[in-house]
Amino acid sequence: MSGELDLIERLRALPLHEGARNLDDDAAVLEIGGETLVLTHDMLVEGVHTARGQDAADVAWKLVATNLSDLAAKGARPVGVLVGFTRGKDEARFVAGLEAALRHYGVPLLGGDTVSGGPPRSHGLTAIGRASHVPVPSRGGARPGDAVWVTGTLGAALAGFEALTAGDRDGARAYLRPQALIEEGLALAPVATAMMDVSDSLLLDAWRMARASGANLVLESAAVPIALPEARRDEALRWGDDYQLLFALPAGLAPPVRATRIGTVESPDSRGDGGSDGDSDGGGALILDGRPIASPDGLGYSH
Amino acid sequence: MSGELDLIERLRALPLHEGARNLDDDAAVLEIGGETLVLTHDMLVEGVHTARGQDAADVAWKLVATNLSDLAAKGARPVGVLVGFTRGKDEARFVAGLEAALRHYGVPLLGGDTVSGGPPRSHGLTAIGRASHVPVPSRGGARPGDAVWVTGTLGAALAGFEALTAGDRDGARAYLRPQALIEEGLALAPVATAMMDVSDSLLLDAWRMARASGANLVLESAAVPIALPEARRDEALRWGDDYQLLFALPAGLAPPVRATRIGTVESPDSRGDGGSDGDSDGGGALILDGRPIASPDGLGYSH
Repeated sequence: MSGELDLIERLRALPLHEGARNLDDDAAVLEIGGETLVLTHDMLVEGVHTARGQDAADVAWKLVATNLSDLAAKGARPVGVLVGFTRGKDEARFVAGLEAALRHYGVPLLGGDTVSGGPPRSHGLTAIGRASHVPVPSRGGARPGDAVWVTGTLGAALAGFEALTAGDRDGARAYLRPQALIEEGLALAPVATAMMDVSDSLLLDAWRMARASGANLVLESAAVPIALPEARRDEALRWGDDYQLLFALPAGLAPPVRATRIGTVESPDSRGDGGSDGDSDGGGALILDGRPIASPDGLGYSH
Repeated sequence: MSGELDLIERLRALPLHEGARNLDDDAAVLEIGGETLVLTHDMLVEGVHTARGQDAADVAWKLVATNLSDLAAKGARPVGVLVGFTRGKDEARFVAGLEAALRHYGVPLLGGDTVSGGPPRSHGLTAIGRASHVPVPSRGGARPGDAVWVTGTLGAALAGFEALTAGDRDGARAYLRPQALIEEGLALAPVATAMMDVSDSLLLDAWRMARASGANLVLESAAVPIALPEARRDEALRWGDDYQLLFALPAGLAPPVRATRIGTVESPDSRGDGGSDGDSDGGGALILDGRPIASPDGLGYSH
């Protein structure tokens, strides 16, 4: 997840080490000792990123999965995590969920900090990964002519959230226990021209990929595989938390993982300028069903 | 800063990667690409770790300095940080303080996350450093016969806190803008048998060093250099936030940095067993002015 762009931009303007490249909001790349490390840090705030009253074990799982998903999108293999944990009555559940997630992914806990505070309580996690392919895939590499693909189905987390609200914990699994697509990311890293995980919504993240790439992402909403009834297709495309991988591949290349082609990349000057708004960086718009999307407002969840 | 030991122990029992050694609460060590990285993550919670109404620029500075202090105690040179920041009205001040601290230490911001939430707001920071000496100094290496030393003076942060409370911002500098002793840590790493930063209080941290080392730390309180009137010596030894380096050196060795000798390390069976309590790990007590300290309760600030 990411904050608003103006603050990120201000933070990014801070002095950057020569050996460090801040690719985008999702992860940082650090070359050290002949290895390329990928580092990511995400926070979860009670009641903001999690449902109130949610089992702390699920909160811990999600904290691990969302950070590892950022590594997956960079084709990085996790080497460890550090956790920042705010203590509370349910901390045994948090530790159980943390352990379950780390065992699931085979990732060690390297260290961290525990504090008192809240409500609301906040938890943070830093994940460190080893890049499997250099250059590390970024959201900014999509080129005109590429095809746009997405793994899995969209809207599964929304369906899960609704199941949870209705008291159906089993049906809520996609929301409560998201999966980081580590193996898929490793397979895609050598061939994808651009890649990111869909954390905030397919449309919002596609918009970001278009902007970062300076190219139009031309998507057909009907082509997107969804986990909701057809009547709710629009919601499926605007809800986040699915952690699927959105990626671009050179035309004609078949992806090495199960995925669905949902559009193409076009030159930014191939269609009007409907996509330009105040912070345009030389073009790159989301074109949905033939209509340029002028603003990211309403495309998904920004937090 | 650290949470209570039981939780840390439970977290530590989680699966650990072969290449990773979780030295103690302060920092983790990760060998990668022929380099030894030191990683640390600390959180600050509004009103818990910072005074209410404190300038967000000072909060950001402290967040950087406390994490870099953990690297200093490991003799590591910082290579970058990731920040987890909860947004608010004063965020421009936070960014200004973050920038000032990172410029001061010449450390790049690699990335991070910004979220909404609170009050209270929480911020986290992960610092990554490159070890200058292997084995990396830990709190657990003090050996009988060593001398115990500390840099600087204790109680300066307490005096600063009191100045702040009295509205004297200039006099509060030691509290508001603590310094991470990076150069001192680099100089000490090759010679210190044990080292840690004094974040919670000299006595509490000395107690921890004794426990981790399985040796008695025999301190003379009168020898400790303090920044408060003599009548308040005891407070100076029990207040935290000074971020001085506490270290052990082989007998007869002069430290390569300005420091004061405050005691010696003795074998744990050289004096009774007054230091043993429930979680004894084979001895190691703090002996203050000839009296064994049986429990860490009241020695300093635990949070």
